[in-house]
Amino acid sequence: MKKLKRSARLVEMTQYLLARPHTLISLTAFADRYQSAKSSISEDLAIIKEVFEGEGIGDLHTLAGAAGGVRFIPRCDKAMALEKIKEMCRQLEQPDRLLPGGYLYMTDLLGQPALLQEAGQMFATAFADREIDAIMTVETKGIPLAYATSLFLNVPVVIVRRDHKVTEGSVVSINYVSGSTKRIQTMSLARRGLREQSRVLIIDDFMKAGGTIQGMIDLLHEFRAVVAGVGVFVESGEIDNEERLLHDYVSLARLTEVDLKTRHITVQPGNFFKEEQ
Amino acid sequence: MKKLKRSARLVEMTQYLLARPHTLISLTAFADRYQSAKSSISEDLAIIKEVFEGEGIGDLHTLAGAAGGVRFIPRCDKAMALEKIKEMCRQLEQPDRLLPGGYLYMTDLLGQPALLQEAGQMFATAFADREIDAIMTVETKGIPLAYATSLFLNVPVVIVRRDHKVTEGSVVSINYVSGSTKRIQTMSLARRGLREQSRVLIIDDFMKAGGTIQGMIDLLHEFRAVVAGVGVFVESGEIDNEERLLHDYVSLARLTEVDLKTRHITVQPGNFFKEEQ
Repeated sequence: MKKLKRSARLVEMTQYLLARPHTLISLTAFADRYQSAKSSISEDLAIIKEVFEGEGIGDLHTLAGAAGGVRFIPRCDKAMALEKIKEMCRQLEQPDRLLPGGYLYMTDLLGQPALLQEAGQMFATAFADREIDAIMTVETKGIPLAYATSLFLNVPVVIVRRDHKVTEGSVVSINYVSGSTKRIQTMSLARRGLREQSRVLIIDDFMKAGGTIQGMIDLLHEFRAVVAGVGVFVESGEIDNEERLLHDYVSLARLTEVDLKTRHITVQPGNFFKEEQ
Repeated sequence: MKKLKRSARLVEMTQYLLARPHTLISLTAFADRYQSAKSSISEDLAIIKEVFEGEGIGDLHTLAGAAGGVRFIPRCDKAMALEKIKEMCRQLEQPDRLLPGGYLYMTDLLGQPALLQEAGQMFATAFADREIDAIMTVETKGIPLAYATSLFLNVPVVIVRRDHKVTEGSVVSINYVSGSTKRIQTMSLARRGLREQSRVLIIDDFMKAGGTIQGMIDLLHEFRAVVAGVGVFVESGEIDNEERLLHDYVSLARLTEVDLKTRHITVQPGNFFKEEQ
């Protein structure tokens, strides 16, 4: 790369760091890339750090010493995030979202790139300090959320299928019981989809009793992998605590009330915001 | 926002623009946001523009006049992109990717956030000048690609299902014939999933004869929507031109040879790179 002026270097470093979250970049690498002294690079990083932290973009962790460097950890500002989630809850409360069976139509929201980016950043914040090798979700609606989260955590996504596909090679399948409908279902994952011993973050769009997520946890056992965390976009609050199969999870929103007669829906911020409320 | 020094403002503006592709931001909005004169903002934008264009990140289109402003159009550098695709082709040529039936295992690649970002940027480059209201894909493996593209084009993603789901409300279904297997299959889209008259970019992971994509085009007709473009990650070159149902599409890679006996696979850059080769 040709030598840049400080102003141009700041622009370049900003985009470089944003594109490489959770990646250690050595000061030497930056100094070589920009043909600049490490002291100048350090000053640039101090400026970027202040803006990123002030604007709710994330932290820059700097490691001193010979092996020193910098790591960008995306992290949202909880107060800003709460405002965004409240706006999303208002959208989810629109009466025409109510579908037969008490389900909520939210496919449109899960297709909007800006909203997905925000949700991904929130999950990445919730699990920023966990050691994570991969993100797992089950088709279909959780996929964009899982992918948005993967961009901020910089780990691959693994998609569990509800059927066997010829293009996956040999698969591991398990049966599981959906907690709310009590039906037996099948899910499968390609044998080569996940390395053994992986630490896996599970992401899904909706959780009622948690049967589907419990199924994914059982599938992880088959790969001798472990759960590093569970994140759901919306949890249903209409489940008794005894009925719930899963208790350790992060939710961004909580469906607290659905009245099929009056079509009144109440959605509130999830347990990710517990301390803010 | 508190008033920032020029150096901090450059960092903030860079991340602000990167997060809002294809969005017109007025100079007035920037001047208000940073409590700075428009002349200073214009100078900042000139610096950012030079870096973005030099590094293959994209263009900054500036509109002069009272309604003036700036629009960030992500656009990859074709020569850099070609190097990335060649590396990806080498990965796809690994003999153990060959599955029964001549299919290629590529789910692992389609789970890697960095690769998906690159592919998304390439599709966004190919279709940067088209008017696009939404991106459509069919479950499952095309979803991360469609979502990656949506981040760069800043339009929502619509997912066509291979079955009817209770959580989608009323759906429009069509039957289609897969061009290569000749089997009749069904695909459906929620009635409220797509606005009438939308201009839609179709994105998918793999195309053989093009039957699945033709199915999506037929489905678009049901919504009185139109095709704004078709992008596929890998096209199969093992199809005669007569057999191919579709001729106007952009491919990033092309599977030119699969020898089931010797397990020899040849993958080359797709038609997106036609002029570069």
